[in-house]
Amino acid sequence: MSVRLNTNYIKNFVSQHELRNIFPLIKAAHESLINHTGAGNEFLGWMNLPVNYDKEEFLRIKKAAEKIKNNSDILVVIGIGGSYLGARAVIEALRSPLYNLLTKDNPQIYFVGNNISSTHLNEVITLCKDKDISVNVISKSGTTTEPALAFRIFKEILEKKYGVYGAKERIFCTTDANKGKLKELALQNDYEQFVVPDNIGGRFSVLTAVGLLPIAVSGLDICKLMEGATKAHEDFLECNLNNDCYKYSAIRNILYNKGKHVEMLVSYEPSMVMFNEWYKQLFGESEGKDNKGILPTSATFSTDLHSLGQYIQDGSRMIFETVIDIKKPKLDFYIEEDKDNFDGLNFLANQNMSVVNRRALEGTILAHTEGGVPNILLEMPEINESELGYLIFFFEKACAISGYMLGVNPFDQPGVERYKKNMFALLGKPGFEDMRNELIEKLK
Amino acid sequence: MSVRLNTNYIKNFVSQHELRNIFPLIKAAHESLINHTGAGNEFLGWMNLPVNYDKEEFLRIKKAAEKIKNNSDILVVIGIGGSYLGARAVIEALRSPLYNLLTKDNPQIYFVGNNISSTHLNEVITLCKDKDISVNVISKSGTTTEPALAFRIFKEILEKKYGVYGAKERIFCTTDANKGKLKELALQNDYEQFVVPDNIGGRFSVLTAVGLLPIAVSGLDICKLMEGATKAHEDFLECNLNNDCYKYSAIRNILYNKGKHVEMLVSYEPSMVMFNEWYKQLFGESEGKDNKGILPTSATFSTDLHSLGQYIQDGSRMIFETVIDIKKPKLDFYIEEDKDNFDGLNFLANQNMSVVNRRALEGTILAHTEGGVPNILLEMPEINESELGYLIFFFEKACAISGYMLGVNPFDQPGVERYKKNMFALLGKPGFEDMRNELIEKLK
Repeated sequence: MSVRLNTNYIKNFVSQHELRNIFPLIKAAHESLINHTGAGNEFLGWMNLPVNYDKEEFLRIKKAAEKIKNNSDILVVIGIGGSYLGARAVIEALRSPLYNLLTKDNPQIYFVGNNISSTHLNEVITLCKDKDISVNVISKSGTTTEPALAFRIFKEILEKKYGVYGAKERIFCTTDANKGKLKELALQNDYEQFVVPDNIGGRFSVLTAVGLLPIAVSGLDICKLMEGATKAHEDFLECNLNNDCYKYSAIRNILYNKGKHVEMLVSYEPSMVMFNEWYKQLFGESEGKDNKGILPTSATFSTDLHSLGQYIQDGSRMIFETVIDIKKPKLDFYIEEDKDNFDGLNFLANQNMSVVNRRALEGTILAHTEGGVPNILLEMPEINESELGYLIFFFEKACAISGYMLGVNPFDQPGVERYKKNMFALLGKPGFEDMRNELIEKLK
Repeated sequence: MSVRLNTNYIKNFVSQHELRNIFPLIKAAHESLINHTGAGNEFLGWMNLPVNYDKEEFLRIKKAAEKIKNNSDILVVIGIGGSYLGARAVIEALRSPLYNLLTKDNPQIYFVGNNISSTHLNEVITLCKDKDISVNVISKSGTTTEPALAFRIFKEILEKKYGVYGAKERIFCTTDANKGKLKELALQNDYEQFVVPDNIGGRFSVLTAVGLLPIAVSGLDICKLMEGATKAHEDFLECNLNNDCYKYSAIRNILYNKGKHVEMLVSYEPSMVMFNEWYKQLFGESEGKDNKGILPTSATFSTDLHSLGQYIQDGSRMIFETVIDIKKPKLDFYIEEDKDNFDGLNFLANQNMSVVNRRALEGTILAHTEGGVPNILLEMPEINESELGYLIFFFEKACAISGYMLGVNPFDQPGVERYKKNMFALLGKPGFEDMRNELIEKLK
């Protein structure tokens, strides 16, 4: 069981001796990580999280989820970046991208405060009309513009609908343990509180309360999710080339140094689209600095074989693919024979549709590798909470090792501040007045 | 009105003399296109489509849409690649990505047959249960695996539910005018038929019946969509550097030759996500060949500033951004002052949220260009049928000119066949037996 790395389709691109030669670098990255001597070592809390999480809070998360399920038709999740991507990724992968249309026993879940689109906000407010709602606001500082603005609006909606006291029962704050605007407000109003740990960055936070509360509300089993991560934590402790996680990092590094500057995370299930987005933040924000780093992109096949397929097959040779191969889909479909065979498709009949999807995967891997695109396979026996928990931890650790092998700090994100400062200055935020005129001049 | 190219933020990356120097190449591309002397010139039907479309069929499309609206809760659209992306892009951009949750007066629209996921298929079948449905199957040949398989399944669902005769009233085929499996079946069963023209490739087909029927079912005004395209057709006829469409192609080409190998199409509205996917097919499939071409990617801001923002700001310097700047959102939202200013956000109050989104856009453009990322702006006064029709034609023509400037055939897609052949062989499709054993050997 659990995710397995299949390197059969990179043989023409990466030799065994390359892996041997790079081993000392893997080891150096490993030691930086486990000895807490590397850059960004104040953010390593995710590493032992699967064996070291707050059990008391975990129980409170489950209770809060039950409460929301019992009294709400809709949970509005307010957060941006790492404060929403992990939860949305898990819910869509394991429930469905059509979750809000399909769900019967669990609340619908809408993610807001991850953009500044007034159109999107209005639409979600419309969908909330005449429904019972709860809000989970997720923000370490409480001052990030997008979620703070959305929370201001939904707090008012709740207070109008349920009164100030009624609203308190329906607002759940996931924020800093001790400080910040949201923490202050939560204390003041006696909102239920969960913690964004100090030593875990946003993009590594899906297995904390940040991700777990919304995931639990969707009816998924968060114990199983943690169990999968715990198993991955064990499996990837040792530094050697049998460690699939480290081997994956090494292969990425070797390919990058050969000019494969773009990684495309591929799956054959549309339910993985948001998981791909989670991966893009994890790797893009960790590695994309100092004018280097692999550009993370994604595709869903066979859908995108009919859009990006041509480029991958024949375009610039700068891409490698990492394929998440889910061996057993959540639901299968038996293809019946048609007595007239009006469409000539009887050659597909008398078998499960998942077999057809598998042949598409195999055929594509052969076509792309022959076209010069290395294909790394991550084989998942099936798709459920524990397998996905395992995959999440696999990627988190692979990302940390990759970052150290690239010589960057995988745990900071200095570049994200730049647009924010400009925006604050242009919006006239107190404290940013000096920049304002200069920027307005530049915009002329 | 209409889309306008703003080149203020590429000044530090592309000089005026570069544009002058490249003009002869633009002219050569233009002449290849209008004289039908370039590669792939059998596929230029899209070029005069806005002034030369089949008016009789257009009326039939509107009538069919009315019929579907009157007798169906759900329209199932079966198609892959260019046979679904355009319609889905327009419906989400102008209605909403939440259309199926929000719609009251118009049928829900589900897109199937664009993947081989049994999970997704089962879910859509569940959503169709106890609902009145119609089907629009879109496939030139009728034999592309994904849509053919989905059509086989939904044809049976309809025939079971409505009987063979009842189903005929609910099946609409958009296919070749004269030949192919689907055409034969449509004639045999007297299904209503619409045409995929011979001289228009899938990725250029959104303004034919391929895109127009689903778009009309969603309640959008397809006359206005065509009007916008007609205006763009007029505006971009002349070959000179005041032609925004040609200028955009020229700038892309110049940037590509400077090592900017990745274009990121950016918007500040989540409703544009599928439009970005349409653009990715259009450019990726047109330019990604002969081991060259700009890799098309996309992002939605400010959402992705908190995931890919770090990479764009500070990572590998191979990206340029093309920003679709929608000046007026579909719905705005007035931000009220909070008397306690509990969150310190009153500096955002007493104005529309769209102003805040605009400052995010301005701040980001300044931050990214200063970080070494050229930003091309496409300014759209508002978002409606005619503006989007205009933008669609802008991109189509820009893509053709770009392809010719790159020295490729922008209208073929030979690379897409490769995975299909492998898949057919592995599935045991008649006629592909020879390859089968060889491939199975390679998979061992």
